[in-house]
Amino acid sequence: MVAGHRYSSFNAQGRCSKVAREARELGGNMSKQTNRQILLVSRPTGEPVSENFKLVENPIPEPGKGELLLRSVYLSLDPYMRGRMNEQRSYAASLELGDVMIGESVCRVINSNIAEFKPGDFVLANTGWQDYFVSNGKGIQKIDEVLSPKSYALGLLGMPGLTAYAGLANIGKPQKNETLVVAAASGAVGSIVGQIGRIKGCRVVGIAGGASKCKYVKEDLGFDECIDHKDADFADKLKNACPNGIDVYFENVGGAVFDAVLPLLNEFARIPVCGLVAHYNDTGLAQGLDRMPLLFRHILSKRLRVQGFIVFDYNSQLDDFKRDMSGWLRDGLIKYREDITDGLESAPTELIGLLKGRNFGKKVIKVSNENE
Amino acid sequence: MVAGHRYSSFNAQGRCSKVAREARELGGNMSKQTNRQILLVSRPTGEPVSENFKLVENPIPEPGKGELLLRSVYLSLDPYMRGRMNEQRSYAASLELGDVMIGESVCRVINSNIAEFKPGDFVLANTGWQDYFVSNGKGIQKIDEVLSPKSYALGLLGMPGLTAYAGLANIGKPQKNETLVVAAASGAVGSIVGQIGRIKGCRVVGIAGGASKCKYVKEDLGFDECIDHKDADFADKLKNACPNGIDVYFENVGGAVFDAVLPLLNEFARIPVCGLVAHYNDTGLAQGLDRMPLLFRHILSKRLRVQGFIVFDYNSQLDDFKRDMSGWLRDGLIKYREDITDGLESAPTELIGLLKGRNFGKKVIKVSNENE
Repeated sequence: MVAGHRYSSFNAQGRCSKVAREARELGGNMSKQTNRQILLVSRPTGEPVSENFKLVENPIPEPGKGELLLRSVYLSLDPYMRGRMNEQRSYAASLELGDVMIGESVCRVINSNIAEFKPGDFVLANTGWQDYFVSNGKGIQKIDEVLSPKSYALGLLGMPGLTAYAGLANIGKPQKNETLVVAAASGAVGSIVGQIGRIKGCRVVGIAGGASKCKYVKEDLGFDECIDHKDADFADKLKNACPNGIDVYFENVGGAVFDAVLPLLNEFARIPVCGLVAHYNDTGLAQGLDRMPLLFRHILSKRLRVQGFIVFDYNSQLDDFKRDMSGWLRDGLIKYREDITDGLESAPTELIGLLKGRNFGKKVIKVSNENE
Repeated sequence: MVAGHRYSSFNAQGRCSKVAREARELGGNMSKQTNRQILLVSRPTGEPVSENFKLVENPIPEPGKGELLLRSVYLSLDPYMRGRMNEQRSYAASLELGDVMIGESVCRVINSNIAEFKPGDFVLANTGWQDYFVSNGKGIQKIDEVLSPKSYALGLLGMPGLTAYAGLANIGKPQKNETLVVAAASGAVGSIVGQIGRIKGCRVVGIAGGASKCKYVKEDLGFDECIDHKDADFADKLKNACPNGIDVYFENVGGAVFDAVLPLLNEFARIPVCGLVAHYNDTGLAQGLDRMPLLFRHILSKRLRVQGFIVFDYNSQLDDFKRDMSGWLRDGLIKYREDITDGLESAPTELIGLLKGRNFGKKVIKVSNENE
């Protein structure tokens, strides 16, 4: 198993950097004559373990009339997957035991019985964790020819990008000179949130785990500050980094980070809530002080707006998002980092790591070569 | 001490009912040659007690150049007052020990050195808990000549009315056929929230304490249902009363009522938070399960919008409010009940009772007669 990462910014001509080009050579030959699938075979209690997953091999499916055969090239790993492994429904139905793990992939069309798609086309599809997938074409999106790397359709120009864009625009509403704080600042969503905040003229403070991530967020992504939540004096450092308080806190983590943020929130602060990765492995509520009334007291006295959202709620803003984000990328205003691991079989370990913050950038599994 | 209550609906000609007219006769002669003031002399730990207050008598103040002498007629008692008795700042600064208790009154102008005001005019002023008040005219509002009873300026047509109106319009955004739930449904704010919800075409479910309040809310105010939060099976009854879940929960109470509401909230439900009276006497956080992550899970998975607000935030909507509310009142679409107690000296006991839900309707202290 080989791990690599892409860290690329487009130049004015829209070509990707040398680092990114090299990274795409790492894949090796992963052609398979069977369809490998990774199934959910037991539900995790707390952190997922490798025994919750099972890799099986089945014949490559045949597309029928009006169907496509897709070959997964890049599989996206995202924190929301943890929720689907539980028995209880979240905003979407949970997986059944024996189901292929859920996930979105960049795929190459292998065979097509739909006029709109030709072999060799690249598309985005909810394939789940497997090599091949037969689709009737519904919900499949063609990937722009000029998009390179194509895996960006899973991140910057895809679901995590729209999450950042729409959550900020519709709920966060950052204003010039306000202070925006974002956790998981080196991650897929957080890194984009912060950079949009910079474009909007905010003071942007990131929170990340570890010195190298913080260095990257501040020096490469251009955040004003980035605080390490593993530091013993994290709360004090965050306070010092926000001398004018916090006007927008983009919540994708929860837990101890939120505890440090709460007292710093200004009147009329906005808190878009799109994730709670610190709690996804919780098995129940912790004993201690019940802080729900404390939260409500802050909400009332500071007139906070706390609002959950899910990216699908803003599908109608996809065109605006693609126009703005492509423009920012072209103009060099947005940088983006991927954390790519080779091989479908590595997906369980990498999801377990993602939930612990072990990724550094958008987590992508390279399932096959683009030309395979 | 004599207690009365007004329960009036205007007829098409804008005259108030017989019940209301009779209630205004209850005051008796309370003319005083001194200025009685009620001071905060110690801070409560938990529930306020009468020893936290002290009634003192001082000479009636003299208005100087550019000043008015006001005589308090109706003093409003409201839950927010509890917060000002604490040492720590809430959204407004707390009272100092020895300060006159804060409060808004309908007053009669006794002497005026401001051309705009004449003796006999009625005005709304932040007098605090006292008989007389000298004002420089700033922040004083004249009360509409035709408004009768004049005490409505403290409730339906004043701060609690605007709280209900603006919180619903700006945050609750009730849509036809949605379910709106409001706690303290017989109180100043809750009763208005629910009636506006009915006007907007919602199914409206009230929550109140005790059978007589529930009967009033359902039969007189026209809510679809009203559930007694003192019932042992309150949560089940609330669930049965909301077969399509809850789309708007107007939060002015907190505590056990919110616990019953949370699991019933629908996707995209809105929760305007304008009060937490169940927590105002809390001395700290309770030991138990920390439910803050639970709340966030609901916020995320159901895309809830939880937003605090304070009536002053919407002062710019005062004209819209007065126009709409006066119209509804004139058309008989809004009913309103006051719980009036005679005598400034009764204010401490009545505030203590208000915080325990002992009032039935908007709590008003009649400090003097309108023509005194």
